Amino acid sequence: MSPAPLALTGGDPAGVGPELALKAWVARGAAGLPPFIAIADARMLRDLARTLGLDVPVEEAMPETAAGVFARALPVLPLGLPHAARPGNPDPATAAGTIRSIETAVALVQAGRARAVVTNPIAKHVLYEAGFLHPGHTEFLAALAGDPPPLPVMMLWSEGLAVVPVTVHIPLSEVPRALTEDLIVETGRIVARELQTRFRVANPRLALAGLNPHAGENGTMGQEDDAVIRPAVERLLAEGIAVRGPVPADTLFHARARATYDAVLAMYHDQALIPIKTIAFDEAVNVTLGLPFVRTSPDHGTAFDIAGQGIARPDSLIAALRLAGRLTEPGLP
Amino acid sequence: MSPAPLALTGGDPAGVGPELALKAWVARGAAGLPPFIAIADARMLRDLARTLGLDVPVEEAMPETAAGVFARALPVLPLGLPHAARPGNPDPATAAGTIRSIETAVALVQAGRARAVVTNPIAKHVLYEAGFLHPGHTEFLAALAGDPPPLPVMMLWSEGLAVVPVTVHIPLSEVPRALTEDLIVETGRIVARELQTRFRVANPRLALAGLNPHAGENGTMGQEDDAVIRPAVERLLAEGIAVRGPVPADTLFHARARATYDAVLAMYHDQALIPIKTIAFDEAVNVTLGLPFVRTSPDHGTAFDIAGQGIARPDSLIAALRLAGRLTEPGLP
Repeated sequence: MSPAPLALTGGDPAGVGPELALKAWVARGAAGLPPFIAIADARMLRDLARTLGLDVPVEEAMPETAAGVFARALPVLPLGLPHAARPGNPDPATAAGTIRSIETAVALVQAGRARAVVTNPIAKHVLYEAGFLHPGHTEFLAALAGDPPPLPVMMLWSEGLAVVPVTVHIPLSEVPRALTEDLIVETGRIVARELQTRFRVANPRLALAGLNPHAGENGTMGQEDDAVIRPAVERLLAEGIAVRGPVPADTLFHARARATYDAVLAMYHDQALIPIKTIAFDEAVNVTLGLPFVRTSPDHGTAFDIAGQGIARPDSLIAALRLAGRLTEPGLP
Repeated sequence: MSPAPLALTGGDPAGVGPELALKAWVARGAAGLPPFIAIADARMLRDLARTLGLDVPVEEAMPETAAGVFARALPVLPLGLPHAARPGNPDPATAAGTIRSIETAVALVQAGRARAVVTNPIAKHVLYEAGFLHPGHTEFLAALAGDPPPLPVMMLWSEGLAVVPVTVHIPLSEVPRALTEDLIVETGRIVARELQTRFRVANPRLALAGLNPHAGENGTMGQEDDAVIRPAVERLLAEGIAVRGPVPADTLFHARARATYDAVLAMYHDQALIPIKTIAFDEAVNVTLGLPFVRTSPDHGTAFDIAGQGIARPDSLIAALRLAGRLTEPGLP
C-alpha cells in the first residue's frame, strides 16, 4: 500500500490557498515534498491553473491512491460541495465547503488515512457570516480533535528559531491579566513533550521571555516577571523540564542566544512573532501542538489583495508541508 | 587648531566602561574612529590597562590638545575626583565622579570644546545611594541640556535598522495608558527632524508599529491602534512628514520591509528592542534625539558580572563613537 499522504485543506477559495497548492505541487521535487492530497474543488483548481498558466494536471484521487498520482498530477479529494470564488472576492456561499474541507482532513488523519493536516488560510469573517461558531481555525481543529477539546498551542517554527506565544490573539492591554502561572506551566509541558515526541529532541531546552522591559529588572518595572513567570519556571523545573527564565526578551533572539534553547515561550503575540518574522519572514510555519495529530499551516493569511495574480509566494506552505512530513516520518525513533 | 574631540564619559568605574574605552582606543585605526577624550581618572585607566595587558598609554590632555595626543595615547581629561573601584564591585563613593564626568562632557559640548557626548554605562542604583535624583542617564542629560529640559527621545540605531520606542522603561501593563496621541506626534516630529538635520536623510520615512496583534485587526483586538495611533499618523502627515501606520509589528522588520523606511516608531520597549537586538546585537547604538547636542552610548549596561576580566566586547562603544563622529562630521551639508 502507498504511504498515507498529507491532507491539505483548500482554505478560502478566494484567497491565495488554491494558488499556493498548485505552486507547491510544481515545486514538489525541488522542495522534497512528501505526497499530499488537496481536499478541494478539482474544477476550481483546474480553472485556476489555466488562468495562471501553471502546468498542473489535477486528478481526483482517494487518500490511498494519492501517493501514486502525486508524481504526475495534483491529487484532489473532491469535497462534494461547490467551492469556487473569484480570487480576492470572498463569498459566504463558499463557507460550507471551506469547513467541510477541514472536517474531512481531520477525519482522514483520525482514521489513519492521512499522516497530518496542513491547512490553507481561511478568513474568519467569511465563515462567521455563514454561522461558524469557533473563535478561529485552531480552536475548530481542537473541537474536532476531541471532547472536551485539548488546549491547542501555537508554535511558529523555522529552521533557526521556534517560538510559542503563551497568549495569542488578544489586545495587548489584556495580556497581563491573561497570563497565569497555570497557563504558562501547561503550555510549557505541551511544548516540552511535543519537542520530544514529534520533533525528536531528546532533552528539550525552553527559554521563557520576560513580560516587562529587562524582565522587570527586579520588580522595578512590573511585578509579573517575579510573581507569575518565575513560579511557573520553578514548577516546570520541578517536573524535570529544562527551562530558564524570565529572560529579558530583547536579549533572547540573536544568533548566539538562539543556540542555547530549542524553543522560546513568549508572553504575547508580537513578542513571539516579531523575532521569527524578522529572521524567517517567508519560511516560518505555524504548527499546532497539543492536538492528537500533527497540524501545520503557512504563517500568513488569505491575502485577498494579491490572490489570483500569480504573485503569491508558496515558501511558507512548502515549509508547512515539509515540516508536516518531517514530524510524521515513518520509521524514525 | 585641532578639531574638537568626542567627549567620552567614564561611566561606572566598576563596570565595563573603562575597559571598553581602552579597547576602543586600541581599535581606533581599524575602526576609523575620530579622536575622543575620556573624562575619567587617568591613574585608574593606567592600572586597568596594565591589569588587562592592554598596551594603552594614557596621557592627560585638554580637549584642545586631545586630537594631537590621540594617535600616540588615550587622551584623558582629569576629573579632579577619585574615580576608581574594583571591577564588578560598584561603590557609591564613586558616584560623585561618575556624575561629574557626565556634567563635564555636557559642558564641553555646550562650549564647543567637544563635538558630541558619548556615554559609558552607569548603574542607577549606585548613583541613587549617593543622592542622584534623576530617573536615568538620559533624563539627567536632558536636565543638563536646558531648563525646562527638552523631551529626550531614545533611538536604537544600527546600519540596517533604526527604532524608537515611544514608551520606554515602564511596565508593559502601563503602556496602553502611557501611549497618547500627543506623545506619538511629538516623538515623530523629533525623529523626522533629526533624521534630516543629523542623519542627513533628505525626506525621512517613518513607519509606526501597531500596539495590538495585527495592529488591532480593525478594532477586533484592541482599540488603541485606531483610536490613538491612527490619528497621530494623520497629524504627522498633515505636517508634511512621510509616515505610515499603524503597521502590524510582526511584518515590519524583515529585510524587504526594512528597505521601506528610515526609522520605526515602536510603541513599547521590547517592540523596538527585540528586532534590533535580533539582527544587530553587538553593533546597536543608543542615540538620544531631542537634545541640543549629539549623544550616543553603547546599547548595554555596566555588565558588572564580566567587568575587569578582559572579555567585554567593545563593538557597541566603537559603533557609538563612530556614529557620534558621523553625526557631527564638519563640512558636510
